[in-house]
Amino acid sequence: MELLWLIFDLVGTIAFAVSGTLVGIGRRMDIFGMLVLALATAIGGGIMRDLIVGNIPPNSLRTGVYVTIVIAVTFIIFLVYRLRRNHYIGTRWVRQMYLAADTLGLASFTVTGAGIGMYNYPDMPVLSVILGLLTAVGGGVIRDILAQRVPSVLREEVYALPAIIGGIVYCAFYHWGMWQIASYSSFIIVVVIRTLAIRYNWSLPRIK
Amino acid sequence: MELLWLIFDLVGTIAFAVSGTLVGIGRRMDIFGMLVLALATAIGGGIMRDLIVGNIPPNSLRTGVYVTIVIAVTFIIFLVYRLRRNHYIGTRWVRQMYLAADTLGLASFTVTGAGIGMYNYPDMPVLSVILGLLTAVGGGVIRDILAQRVPSVLREEVYALPAIIGGIVYCAFYHWGMWQIASYSSFIIVVVIRTLAIRYNWSLPRIK
Amino acid sequence: MELLWLIFDLVGTIAFAVSGTLVGIGRRMDIFGMLVLALATAIGGGIMRDLIVGNIPPNSLRTGVYVTIVIAVTFIIFLVYRLRRNHYIGTRWVRQMYLAADTLGLASFTVTGAGIGMYNYPDMPVLSVILGLLTAVGGGVIRDILAQRVPSVLREEVYALPAIIGGIVYCAFYHWGMWQIASYSSFIIVVVIRTLAIRYNWSLPRIK
Repeated sequence: MELLWLIFDLVGTIAFAVSGTLVGIGRRMDIFGMLVLALATAIGGGIMRDLIVGNIPPNSLRTGVYVTIVIAVTFIIFLVYRLRRNHYIGTRWVRQMYLAADTLGLASFTVTGAGIGMYNYPDMPVLSVILGLLTAVGGGVIRDILAQRVPSVLREEVYALPAIIGGIVYCAFYHWGMWQIASYSSFIIVVVIRTLAIRYNWSLPRIK
Repeated sequence: MELLWLIFDLVGTIAFAVSGTLVGIGRRMDIFGMLVLALATAIGGGIMRDLIVGNIPPNSLRTGVYVTIVIAVTFIIFLVYRLRRNHYIGTRWVRQMYLAADTLGLASFTVTGAGIGMYNYPDMPVLSVILGLLTAVGGGVIRDILAQRVPSVLREEVYALPAIIGGIVYCAFYHWGMWQIASYSSFIIVVVIRTLAIRYNWSLPRIK
Repeated sequence: MELLWLIFDLVGTIAFAVSGTLVGIGRRMDIFGMLVLALATAIGGGIMRDLIVGNIPPNSLRTGVYVTIVIAVTFIIFLVYRLRRNHYIGTRWVRQMYLAADTLGLASFTVTGAGIGMYNYPDMPVLSVILGLLTAVGGGVIRDILAQRVPSVLREEVYALPAIIGGIVYCAFYHWGMWQIASYSSFIIVVVIRTLAIRYNWSLPRIK
């Protein structure tokens, strides 16, 4: 299990580092502002997750791997952008890259959050689902608050919902002893629901 | 003591779930945005409280009771609102319900915050008063930041003050061995001061 | 080491209490809003630092010293301001006092953050550098979010950079067994870089 969990954690970290950097670029931040925003987005949700289950110090700070990845992602995107004069990057392409990265991060961190919950407290499925939700949306909430945007989790129509469904699916399969299927199916369900919601502009009931 | 503490914790959770849902409605959020806002408001302050005293995993996530309550509160309020066509709900009535819920939550969580502080660290009254304040205003601060409002604790004239006084009263009675009186008197004092402050528009000194 | 660490922690607390109070005055808050803002700024970063290394309950809440200092700072500044009619305090003087306090806090908390990291986990330099950064900018980020300002760490040109460099310098000297030199040199480097950056309006590369 360890390795699979680690892979999802790294994928989520890279994805949220990309989304944080892109928001930083959109806000015309300098390179260190972007780095701080990418760091907060990529490791913020995981740190909250680890604090809540008493995983001290948080996983992402025990080695230099996570921070190195975030720094690399930020610098690569920054450099690519500086070369814009030659190779034009359209706003639409950026928007789509942002949505893809955000969706990947949402799905990966739903898995790591629900996974760390069930691993530490197998008899607390509610804790695990909430941990999946918190880990998945936590980094993005920090990113949006720092960048003074309305948090995606409150603005986007279908954002918290896939993370909650993904967490429930994870807990069910894990409970039946299929933790590998739990990870894969949870990840796929979040990606599919979120992607369909963006593509077809799904909306949920609200007060008029 | 356990039972009395639990009752205040549940009352505070319900009250803040109501206040979070109402703010979500005011912001025209969809049903899941409202649920996330209600959850963050209702259990956010208590999670901060539990992390600070090392109460892992946080009390509100150990069972499904708290989350179920928040979901129920959100759906009930949502449904009541959808029926507005028939039974008109005025804005003034909503404002008063919001203030009542917020005051109840403030008072209940002052008790649970100061209570968990004195219970775990009876020789640290300052910790307990600050925990009471943090638990009481923490959920509301998260709610207001997520909904991009100026936090009540900074905007309202008399908001932090009753929580601080309530916490001091709690610690004094607890220190004298009267933990039941500590809970009741602390709760009543916060409710009375906050209600009078709203009713008579009390104001504190400020720089002109 | 204990005493030296404590001195930096107290200097940082006073400095950030001053900066929080000044922002509260600028936002026309009442005396308790100012106090809450000063408290959050002064002890917020340190509480995050202590939670991440499992230092429970957080250092600043174990005694009444820190809270008393923050209350004293807030009341003194408030009183000085109320006497403005007689002794005029210019806006430019306030701005410079704010920048000085913020710089002092940034430098002191870089030292205490990196220090508590290396002390608890001497083989995790990345944890220590990030802890230095988080402690240094954490309180200010809370302050700015509560007061609805763009966080300094994202707006100011050279803000995160000195804290990161200071943290790396601290870890290097600490690793070589010179923890006293680590503290002093880290503090001085942060103050010098930040002051020069403000004075000469340094800027970092960004996307145009």
